[in-house]
Order: sequence, then structure tokens, then C-alpha cells
Amino acid sequence: MNVGVIGLGLIGGSTALKIKEIDTNTVIYGLDNDMDSMSYSLSKGIIDKKLDINSIDNLKYIFIAIPVDAIKNEIESILNKISNNTLVVDLGSTKYEICKKVVDHTNRKNFLAAHPIAGTEFSGPSAATKNLFDNKVLILCETEKTDQDLLSDALKIFDLMNMNIINMDSIEHDKHIAYVSHLSHISSFMLGKTVMNKEEDQDTIYDMAGSGFESTVRLAKSSPETWASIFVENKNNIVESLNEYISNINNFKILIENGDKEKLSAEMKKINGIKEILNGIK
Amino acid sequence: MNVGVIGLGLIGGSTALKIKEIDTNTVIYGLDNDMDSMSYSLSKGIIDKKLDINSIDNLKYIFIAIPVDAIKNEIESILNKISNNTLVVDLGSTKYEICKKVVDHTNRKNFLAAHPIAGTEFSGPSAATKNLFDNKVLILCETEKTDQDLLSDALKIFDLMNMNIINMDSIEHDKHIAYVSHLSHISSFMLGKTVMNKEEDQDTIYDMAGSGFESTVRLAKSSPETWASIFVENKNNIVESLNEYISNINNFKILIENGDKEKLSAEMKKINGIKEILNGIK
Repeated sequence: MNVGVIGLGLIGGSTALKIKEIDTNTVIYGLDNDMDSMSYSLSKGIIDKKLDINSIDNLKYIFIAIPVDAIKNEIESILNKISNNTLVVDLGSTKYEICKKVVDHTNRKNFLAAHPIAGTEFSGPSAATKNLFDNKVLILCETEKTDQDLLSDALKIFDLMNMNIINMDSIEHDKHIAYVSHLSHISSFMLGKTVMNKEEDQDTIYDMAGSGFESTVRLAKSSPETWASIFVENKNNIVESLNEYISNINNFKILIENGDKEKLSAEMKKINGIKEILNGIK
Repeated sequence: MNVGVIGLGLIGGSTALKIKEIDTNTVIYGLDNDMDSMSYSLSKGIIDKKLDINSIDNLKYIFIAIPVDAIKNEIESILNKISNNTLVVDLGSTKYEICKKVVDHTNRKNFLAAHPIAGTEFSGPSAATKNLFDNKVLILCETEKTDQDLLSDALKIFDLMNMNIINMDSIEHDKHIAYVSHLSHISSFMLGKTVMNKEEDQDTIYDMAGSGFESTVRLAKSSPETWASIFVENKNNIVESLNEYISNINNFKILIENGDKEKLSAEMKKINGIKEILNGIK
């Protein structure tokens, strides 16, 4: 089959590699605005050919893995050019605005909103790996609006990619993902910023940092373009989560200022409950 | 030799195991307020005998690995009971208050303030492992106040424990460690709290969380007693770091509210510089 991949970063590149592994006869047409990513992907065999955006009606699938605001801007134009047998799958980290954008499109049935919970802090096609999606969750939104035959074929592919499907409303998706993903990226970026500002010109101080700091600040290495776009697209939910986060920190700070070890300890004991919850994370 | 270990948690237990490995003739005397920790440590051979706090003048080393406020409360009484040849090493995560407490003690020269950068989110003697300190940094404070022969012997032990020594003023230690360690624990605990409050009774939502969330919230599993004590002992530095952290988050939030992708992206690009810094973390 012929498969298009638009956006050859971590997610797009990994999708291309995995699809090729599943069906070695597949021809992967790839496209990226960045010339280095294009040539890297061609030379490493991540894609087979350059995709011509005006000639996409021969493709069975088109996976879109570009920043979420760009998906929103491009999706209608892409849906205009496909055949009846094409399924366009967006792989962005926000879903509501994109679903809204296409809700009345003639080819809505050829669209599937998907979010693989499978990032790392690395980006670009050199970070792509065919095992990125192994045993990871794939959230699908509003699948009832997708042609059921096309959906059924796609589910077989996702199954071969070893992904676990969760169905969810797009509003619910964006609300919860703000808390369990977007907020932790911001907390990590801001931790990085606070420490870097303080320790400017004192690099040796980082010798004092242990694996705890490294783990907490890991996401601060993530792609600025990808995340700026996500933060703005999911603005309302993220601002709500940030307000709650700041309020929690302020209250905790008061306990510290009061030297209230008992309350601090009781509070942290409750939060320790995250242990059991994390054990359930796939 | 005879070695005492007071506090049989992750740090104390790991110290006992490693010292025993270095010199199998060593007899380890251990003490913990928690009866379960005592019996576990004895039954698993982490320690050889129960330490009698009123009979410690036969010990070459006494390692103290209890909460930092407890170290402050106990240190004088311990120094009162030792012999001239004993070195008391405190292994707490804050240093200034403890150093201040003993500065005029007759046996100040028998005291060494040390901080191994080697925690994990696990606690108790069952988390102890003899390799915890391998290639980790050990910060020593105000070593000029320690008897140089006792210090020299201790440095040989730390070398055999594969630790890398950094010397530092206790005020500087507490200031910097607030940023590179204590702050990240609070950011992680508060992330855990914010998500748990939001997602109460919706455990399945955690299926949406990826490895990024898990990494950022890892420290929220840490011991409440240990950390309540650290936060209060290092109150001033931590409150300063929290104020900067909150201010950074508030400014970032405004950029999100304004939908200013360009500034968000530029800001995150700068913070990405943490990559190079982290590569230097041992």
C-alpha cells in the first residue's frame, strides 16, 4: 500500500518505520518543511519517496505529525485532495480544535483524530524508532464520525503496531491531557529555567544535582515548536491546571514558612498515593 | 573496625552494606526508632548488632542518617559520648544548621558534615543497596574544622565507596541544594497533588499519562518524614527558590494566555540548554 507521512519528526518518523516493518511492500511518501529532516529521512530509509502534497489521492493512509496549530491550518486542504479510500490520521497532542475544524467537511468520514501517548524528550527524525509505540496507549476521538470500514482497517494497523486503543470525547481528551501531560512539561521547563537563572556561570553547581533533578527536568529538553503550539491550542485547560498548580505550591510554601512539619508530612503522605496510581501506567 | 549507623533507611542501610563490603571484618552496630526497620536490618544482615546509644566510645565511625531536624537535636548528645578516635559523620541533606549547632562543641574535631548526592524515591532499609553511592558526589562542608587525621582516614573510606568528593561552605551548600534538589522535590509533589485532585475517582485517566508524567512525578513518592524535615530546616533558601519558580510559571502562563507562540518557543529554546548541562551530571 501507499502511505503518506507529513511531518518527519519523532512521531512521524517512528510511524513510518513501524508501518514499513509491518508491511515491507508499503511505499512511504514523506514530507517535511525542514530540508535536513527530508534528506535525513530519505537517506536513512525512514521514507521511500518525497510526498507531493498535490498528488495524494493514491494514498491509503496519510499520517499527520506536525505541530498541532499547523494540523489545524492544513487539515481542510489535505482532506480536499484525497480519494474516497484514503484515511487521514492526525497524531497531534490536542484534539478538540482539530475535530471542530473538520466537523462539517465533506470528507469528515475520511478523517481520524488520534493521539499516541508515546513521546520522548527527543525530537527530529534521528530520534525516530520503530518501537516507540510498543504497548503504548493510542487515544481515538469521535470515531463514530469516521467511515467504519476505514476505521476497521486502521484498527488492524494499530493492533499490529502493538498499541492499546482508548476511545474518548475530544473535549475530555484535551481537559485530562492538560493535567497528565501538558502540565508536567511546563513544570519541568520552569524548573529548568529557575535553576539555570540561579546558577548562571556556576556550572560546577550541577555536580550537586542528582538523578532526582535529572528526572524532574527531563521534559525541559522537549521541542519548543511542538510544545509552544500545544500550549496555545490547549490554552484554557492548561491555564486552569497551572492556576491549580500555583495555588497548591503557594499553600505548601505557607506550611514551610510556618515550619509545620506535621502538616507537610501529612500532605506528602497523601500524595505518596501516586505510587499505586503510577504502577498502573502502561 | 566497629562502625555505628544511626537511622536504617535508604542512606543508612546502604552505608552499612557498603562499609561491610569494603571491610568484611567490620562489625556494624545499627539503630533505628522503627522496630520493623531494626528487625529487618538485623535479619537481612544489613547490621550485625543493635547499637546502644550509651555505649558508643568503642566505635571508629558513627554515620547518622536520620531526618535533618533529628540530627540537629541529637548531635550534641552523641558527640558528648564518643572517644577521641571516633569520627561522627552526618549524612543529612542540609548542612548549615547542623554545622552551626556543633561549632563550639569540645569534640567539633570529631565531626564531619557530609551530604551524599545519592537518594532515590524509595525509602526504608528494604531500599538499601550497597551500590547506591557508586560514582556519586559526596559534598563535605567545613572540613578544616575536622581533625585532619580522622578526615584523612574517612577520605580513604569514601574513596573505597567510589564517591567523588566536593568541598563546600555549608551556607553555599544549603543555598544551591535548594535549587538543584529540594525545589525539584516540591515541584514533583505539587504536580502529583494537582493531578490527583483533578482526577479523583477517575483512575483510568492515568492511562493517558506517558513516561513523561511518570518521570516528572517520580520524586512525589519520596519519604514524607525525610522531606518535611529538610523543607523546614532549609526554609529560607527553599522559599526563595519557590518564589522564583512561581514567578517564572506566572510569566509563562501570561505568554500562553496571549497565545504568544514565538516568545514561548524562544523561552523554551533557551531552557533546552539544560541538555548540555545535564550531560555533565554524574
